[in-house]
Amino acid sequence: MSDLTPSSPSTALFTDHYELTMLQAALAAGTAQRRSVFEVFGRRLPHGRRYGVVAGTGRILEMLRDFRFTGEEIDFLRSTGVVDAPTLDWLADYRFSGTIRGYAEGEVYFPGSPLLSVESSFAEGVVLETLILSALNYDTAVASAASRMSGAAGDRPCAEMGSRRTHEAAAVAAARAAVIAGFASTSNLEAGRRYGLRTIGTSAHSFTLLHDTERQAFAAQVDSLGKDTILLLDTYDVDTALDTAIEIAGPELGGVRLDSGDLGIQAHEVREKLDARGARNTKITVTSDLDEYAIAALQAAPVDAYGVGTRVVTGSGAPTASLVYKLVARQGAEGTWVSVEKASKSKASHGGIKQAVRSYDGSIATEESIGVPALPADFDGRALLVDLVVDGEIDDAFTGAEGVRRAQVRHAESVGELPRSAHRLQDGEPAIPTVYYSG
Amino acid sequence: MSDLTPSSPSTALFTDHYELTMLQAALAAGTAQRRSVFEVFGRRLPHGRRYGVVAGTGRILEMLRDFRFTGEEIDFLRSTGVVDAPTLDWLADYRFSGTIRGYAEGEVYFPGSPLLSVESSFAEGVVLETLILSALNYDTAVASAASRMSGAAGDRPCAEMGSRRTHEAAAVAAARAAVIAGFASTSNLEAGRRYGLRTIGTSAHSFTLLHDTERQAFAAQVDSLGKDTILLLDTYDVDTALDTAIEIAGPELGGVRLDSGDLGIQAHEVREKLDARGARNTKITVTSDLDEYAIAALQAAPVDAYGVGTRVVTGSGAPTASLVYKLVARQGAEGTWVSVEKASKSKASHGGIKQAVRSYDGSIATEESIGVPALPADFDGRALLVDLVVDGEIDDAFTGAEGVRRAQVRHAESVGELPRSAHRLQDGEPAIPTVYYSG
Repeated sequence: MSDLTPSSPSTALFTDHYELTMLQAALAAGTAQRRSVFEVFGRRLPHGRRYGVVAGTGRILEMLRDFRFTGEEIDFLRSTGVVDAPTLDWLADYRFSGTIRGYAEGEVYFPGSPLLSVESSFAEGVVLETLILSALNYDTAVASAASRMSGAAGDRPCAEMGSRRTHEAAAVAAARAAVIAGFASTSNLEAGRRYGLRTIGTSAHSFTLLHDTERQAFAAQVDSLGKDTILLLDTYDVDTALDTAIEIAGPELGGVRLDSGDLGIQAHEVREKLDARGARNTKITVTSDLDEYAIAALQAAPVDAYGVGTRVVTGSGAPTASLVYKLVARQGAEGTWVSVEKASKSKASHGGIKQAVRSYDGSIATEESIGVPALPADFDGRALLVDLVVDGEIDDAFTGAEGVRRAQVRHAESVGELPRSAHRLQDGEPAIPTVYYSG
Repeated sequence: MSDLTPSSPSTALFTDHYELTMLQAALAAGTAQRRSVFEVFGRRLPHGRRYGVVAGTGRILEMLRDFRFTGEEIDFLRSTGVVDAPTLDWLADYRFSGTIRGYAEGEVYFPGSPLLSVESSFAEGVVLETLILSALNYDTAVASAASRMSGAAGDRPCAEMGSRRTHEAAAVAAARAAVIAGFASTSNLEAGRRYGLRTIGTSAHSFTLLHDTERQAFAAQVDSLGKDTILLLDTYDVDTALDTAIEIAGPELGGVRLDSGDLGIQAHEVREKLDARGARNTKITVTSDLDEYAIAALQAAPVDAYGVGTRVVTGSGAPTASLVYKLVARQGAEGTWVSVEKASKSKASHGGIKQAVRSYDGSIATEESIGVPALPADFDGRALLVDLVVDGEIDDAFTGAEGVRRAQVRHAESVGELPRSAHRLQDGEPAIPTVYYSG
């Protein structure tokens, strides 16, 4: 009852039961070693969205390192009878030895874009389904929402502050995904530690309420954190708080934060008062239930920075990217590749190995061009699939803090290439069409 | 670049930056040791919901054990300058020594219900805000949705199968929360290991596609997993698949799964065919984008079990419970308790220490009765606040597999006491009103 934190850092049980029973049956049938290609894609974007942003790729590579069935995992599977002894033996030796290619993290995507492909034996690939989808579905949902928010914010920085509104480990991934998609910082300390992200924050209403007066609270904060701190104005009365703040910190006060009320009107009033007191460099941060629409509505208000919580960590109405992991090709008994796909009409998918290129008119993207299995040799455009794991060797450049920095650059460049319509927040069609070419 | 999995199992950095800067300022001002009560509550239920279900409490207790600022956490905070040296010294010695009371996990709740209260020094309580809210907000969102689904399913079991549609660690918490709220099982193996949950699953479309024919795939599955396995019928043509399935497994076939199309019509057709072939005990499981409404719509269809994915792990439209953690009382300089609350009109809250009781008419709940600070001594009803941590001592009975079992019982009993209107899926008011009594 007492040891709930598994002592093993293995990620191998972030897996659905059926992956292991399929493995068992395929091992017994002699089909487990057939070379296979699994592909991750989304059938559609969330309702009305113009584009999505791939995130989670680096985390998959980090977790793939620890995808090991150690004694602890094997003991659990044995004692619960999930699979038979030969399957346990196979799992105990598991090391992914295949090749994973995919859209670089931070890249934009559209319906049908082949975001990730896993080429390996069926056995090695089938057990990664849940781990891969969990990371991509959550992180991509957050990055896709965050990109719309940072786009609406323009040059004003957005801070991710939603840790409290999602699972504690998801919060770390959300901070990472938001920063990839243009956010400047996060409140989440673990994300700061793991990925070298800038963390921010000064005080909450509880700090003001702890003290006998707002004046005592502000004085305590300025004494300890310095005049360049950000004071929270709306615990009692904003006007009074503003007067007190400037009396205590003077015009060198770093910033003020507004967390309730009509933020646009208040920002104008607060800016006027700050300027009248000579506090022209004191910044205004707003933080109350913001999303991309609220940020856009504040474009004309004198706001310097946005703090975004709930809506970014829950994907602003689309809390999962609804990506799927499908077997699209496998070798037959005689060794030739066979494209495969499910026939049910309501979930049509495109079988087969794919090549993906983004086509341009000048510097503006015009089409997501997908060749099944390949585009013509002279096809013009930017290749979208990059090597992430080659024959089991993980490319570390996509992981950790470096991976985040690369993904930030990729995001900025890819969003910059999209046609203007991509930046409309209203519901509409994907910014560019996805076109299939059969080679 | 290579060591991304923190070697420390500490949960201490699942924390927002501002909690530590508040701590620093309060330590410097001499106010950090003031006794304080923080309270978790929701201002409202998700739109149209009749009740919510508390979950995450046990996980908070599990994580509280590991909430330690070890050398690794201190080094990060020092190197990034988050807080000053005296604050780091204080954190290095951190052990929660206060008292936490709350609604038992699995309990139902309403707007304003004081779900958790943390009584300690301000310093000890303020740093737990994000950890507590993350666990409660996510798990409660899932349990609240799951309870509506298991309610709509009645005696038919629901299986949680949504791991792939949420963050990989959130998936474990989601499985746990769903089972607390009436689900029978989960696909998630890590949840099985950590909490002793029943895990289930047999095969996906990829298993059929791996093989040269559907017949080969079914034969491989039945050979390895036995005749009581569940065969997936809709990779190609359901009718043909059903014939093949019965030819291979005979009428002893355990079950079939339908994952697309009009599930109600198909279930009727498949049931008829199964019965005609003598497979009267072969169960039908359906699994395509189900939520509480789809489950309710299938009540008249011959379905034996539901597999629910995306909608349960994303809270069926409410991916966070939007619970908040607020300072409601603290001692003043002279040692007397002072009720505190933020004055901003748009976020009215009820300050003060609270007592919570559920009132009944016979066996049916009629009111959530909240005394500030206490109800009259002769007030009738069931006390809702239980001791979870007393003077730093965690009650292990609320953690691990035992905690889940207790929470399942609590959920079933509490839901059973609600008036009938609680089980309507249509939008409406909370099933019982929340009434405040000032003592």
